[in-house]
Amino acid sequence: MSNPAQNSAATTESTLADIVSHAKEYGFVFPSSEIYDGLAAVYDYGPNGVELKNNLKQLWWKAMTQLNQNVVGIDAAIFMHPLTWKASGHVDGFSDPMIDNLDSKKRYRADVLLEEKAAEYEKNGEIARAETLLAEMGRLLTAEDLAGVKQLIIDEKILCPVSKTGNWTDVRQFNLMFSTQVGAVAEGSSLIYLRPETAQGIFVNFLNVQKSARQQVPFGIAQIGKAFRNEIVARQFIFRMREFEQMEMQFFVRPGTEGEWYQHWKETRRRWHEALGLPAAKLRFHDHDKLAHYAKAAVDIEYEFPFGFKEIEGIHSRSDFDLTQHQALSRKKQNYFDNDINPETGKPYGNYVPFVVETSVGADRLFLATLCQAFQEETITEGEGEEQKTKTRKLLRLHPAVAPVKAAIFPLVKKDGLPEKANEIYQALRYDFRVIVEEKDAIGKRYTRQDLIGTPFCIAVDHQTLEDNTVTVRHRDSREQTRMPISELHGYIGHAVSFSRIFEQL
Amino acid sequence: MSNPAQNSAATTESTLADIVSHAKEYGFVFPSSEIYDGLAAVYDYGPNGVELKNNLKQLWWKAMTQLNQNVVGIDAAIFMHPLTWKASGHVDGFSDPMIDNLDSKKRYRADVLLEEKAAEYEKNGEIARAETLLAEMGRLLTAEDLAGVKQLIIDEKILCPVSKTGNWTDVRQFNLMFSTQVGAVAEGSSLIYLRPETAQGIFVNFLNVQKSARQQVPFGIAQIGKAFRNEIVARQFIFRMREFEQMEMQFFVRPGTEGEWYQHWKETRRRWHEALGLPAAKLRFHDHDKLAHYAKAAVDIEYEFPFGFKEIEGIHSRSDFDLTQHQALSRKKQNYFDNDINPETGKPYGNYVPFVVETSVGADRLFLATLCQAFQEETITEGEGEEQKTKTRKLLRLHPAVAPVKAAIFPLVKKDGLPEKANEIYQALRYDFRVIVEEKDAIGKRYTRQDLIGTPFCIAVDHQTLEDNTVTVRHRDSREQTRMPISELHGYIGHAVSFSRIFEQL
Repeated sequence: MSNPAQNSAATTESTLADIVSHAKEYGFVFPSSEIYDGLAAVYDYGPNGVELKNNLKQLWWKAMTQLNQNVVGIDAAIFMHPLTWKASGHVDGFSDPMIDNLDSKKRYRADVLLEEKAAEYEKNGEIARAETLLAEMGRLLTAEDLAGVKQLIIDEKILCPVSKTGNWTDVRQFNLMFSTQVGAVAEGSSLIYLRPETAQGIFVNFLNVQKSARQQVPFGIAQIGKAFRNEIVARQFIFRMREFEQMEMQFFVRPGTEGEWYQHWKETRRRWHEALGLPAAKLRFHDHDKLAHYAKAAVDIEYEFPFGFKEIEGIHSRSDFDLTQHQALSRKKQNYFDNDINPETGKPYGNYVPFVVETSVGADRLFLATLCQAFQEETITEGEGEEQKTKTRKLLRLHPAVAPVKAAIFPLVKKDGLPEKANEIYQALRYDFRVIVEEKDAIGKRYTRQDLIGTPFCIAVDHQTLEDNTVTVRHRDSREQTRMPISELHGYIGHAVSFSRIFEQL
Repeated sequence: MSNPAQNSAATTESTLADIVSHAKEYGFVFPSSEIYDGLAAVYDYGPNGVELKNNLKQLWWKAMTQLNQNVVGIDAAIFMHPLTWKASGHVDGFSDPMIDNLDSKKRYRADVLLEEKAAEYEKNGEIARAETLLAEMGRLLTAEDLAGVKQLIIDEKILCPVSKTGNWTDVRQFNLMFSTQVGAVAEGSSLIYLRPETAQGIFVNFLNVQKSARQQVPFGIAQIGKAFRNEIVARQFIFRMREFEQMEMQFFVRPGTEGEWYQHWKETRRRWHEALGLPAAKLRFHDHDKLAHYAKAAVDIEYEFPFGFKEIEGIHSRSDFDLTQHQALSRKKQNYFDNDINPETGKPYGNYVPFVVETSVGADRLFLATLCQAFQEETITEGEGEEQKTKTRKLLRLHPAVAPVKAAIFPLVKKDGLPEKANEIYQALRYDFRVIVEEKDAIGKRYTRQDLIGTPFCIAVDHQTLEDNTVTVRHRDSREQTRMPISELHGYIGHAVSFSRIFEQL
């Protein structure tokens, strides 16, 4: 107990470890291809995970394309013409600086080696030294001085963790895009990339969407889809994966108005996360220190994960960079004609390439934040008088609108017609809600199981039910029980799980 | 008009061409990366297309995982461990026979060259000759006699369409899986594949799902996701694409019961397509002539597209082939212990590797079938007496549950507070339905536009609305108009677009 910093780190890690293990045991997230000992930095969503994730995706989709008449969706393919990535800058600039150790033959991210060195200084209390190192590294990387980065590694006497030698190759840039060959013509197939972001699928479709959907600036295009990055250092469970899912919306505006739209979306998106149950105290804005040369402003919405505050969404004011780049390379005008009257000239604003404000959520990160937030352990008291005892209860306090199972129906015993009655209730609810019937085990055990997957309501069917058609509804969070006519169940559950109550807060 | 066969072909093609052009103009489907002149056999879904496709996907998902307690979902990654494809047979057997012409340097599918030759015979009335050729080709391919296939091409005097010579290379097998390199370790990165089918993501997760979801055989695992095949001959719009989406459900059963479950799912799935609006007359079952060596039975549900009856879904009785293969290669038991009592022995059925009945829908094909079915042209009569005239109306008769826009609200004029009233109605509906307000153009033109994208209801707001809070609801299919209180709109639309009415027919 002599090193508080280390202890705190240990606590943090074990909390994430708890969530990883809970996620696997209760069917939220499995390591990919686990029977073949897994595939690094790739995960599969299980039966409860896919329902939770789909609910989050739908809430985002509807908040974008249903609540806003001027936001429409698309679903562009993962495969795109390779010039797309030339225009966007990914072919030339989307890379990490890598260095190999000649003795161990292991490859490392040069910046990560230096960051780890800085962290070591910091742990030893040499804060200034750590800061100087990071600043110098930042300067060299920005200047693309890879020889300088190598020299810094040598000067800092950084050794390979495996061979323990400082026998390093030069630092080289390694592109993060996955590539594949398409077609099989004899004269040579062509190289294409798996998209590293969904945004470009929106930009290349800008005019097709604007015209077919008859939209006028300002308007937005929303998309949910997979993206792929050949991350060298993939960490923290599903936080950074090689295959991941984005929920992006590009909002096209008249140049000069991007500032107010940036503010609008920044606030709107934060409210959305809060409405879904991420508490204000665990969310913060983090302005980017450095901006891309074309960017006007950029902010992350960060959530406090067990491993610290990390980005779950980025809001970026991207200027007309992407559309202008595509215009130059494709030789197809990306102009919009604005009929609105400019008060300064008395004439229409006319032709321009719109500016873009982007909102970009990591769907897997949002899922992880939701799971971390919902995963709670609490001490509860059960029984009365002499029988009273306290115990620990684990549960997922998920918003009912995103819970994988909305209600579990429990016949108290497996006889006397109770299972048949439970089935009747199931039949009446299943068209509209994902509900299940559980017959096995004592009722307490059944409650526990539903708590662990976040089911908001358990419906107990007992002998009284056969007499008066009422059931007991047990609430996950309070463990309170309410007697209710069967005929009221549909409306009661419907109200609790409806998206509308979330939308009202936006 | 002398050649009816040719005319009929021409009509067929122009109908698909109409749909392709309609799909682009009205925001359903765009060629991918069109500003860069497209990417062969890849398409993007536009604003209306993505809504239609999402609705179809959700209807399938809920019909699987919400209507059946013993079907649960997963969402496995596209990237899987490469041994997966060794076990499934895709590494060794998932290929097309290709042949190159040495003069033109063009590459062709050998079987397609022969099929085209047979089609030529057929067109000339030489039916028997065509059949003999196809039978011989089938025999050679089954025997994997590639030298024989080449000889057949030479014997049939098939020439390269470009060079017009018969100067051919040998026939070689070309694998249809896309591959990419993952990781960047100095000692060599590893080759992985983009999954060519979603089914294997289900098989490798069989035990994780069964245990975490506490399922007992018989039970199913459903999944929607992208798959990729490097098709050499990609044709017919979105019918055969290099990147496509599958909706698959693998149903695990006790060996010996696969026949009844095969029948069950065959009938259930056909009813589903009919409930969504594909008429019985345009659907048929097509039993596979040849079965894979492990398969017990296989049938396609075919829809009559403008280019003929083609598969939209396959139902396959796959035995224990996949699980057994994975068990052998991973050395992880894929056993299930069945506690049910075998009446013949009086003891539990015990341990076995379950058999599988698969239902596999091509989501893009279902989308195309839905669009083809909905796309109609009809002659209508407008006006009365002397003013009466007939005209042609195009429309999409989509089921309201899958229509991209549920209702369009039209203020009759852009003044007198009608736009504000329209907006009030929009606000009251948008939480639950995707509705839009349209103010521009004459009302007839606005109706036409909504017909073209399949909006089931148009709500006209006029001066009477301001007095008595009633609106006119115009029905897409009948063009009939009904006066209705605003307060009834929510329930009226909700009933029409609800999934429940479809589920009731299953």
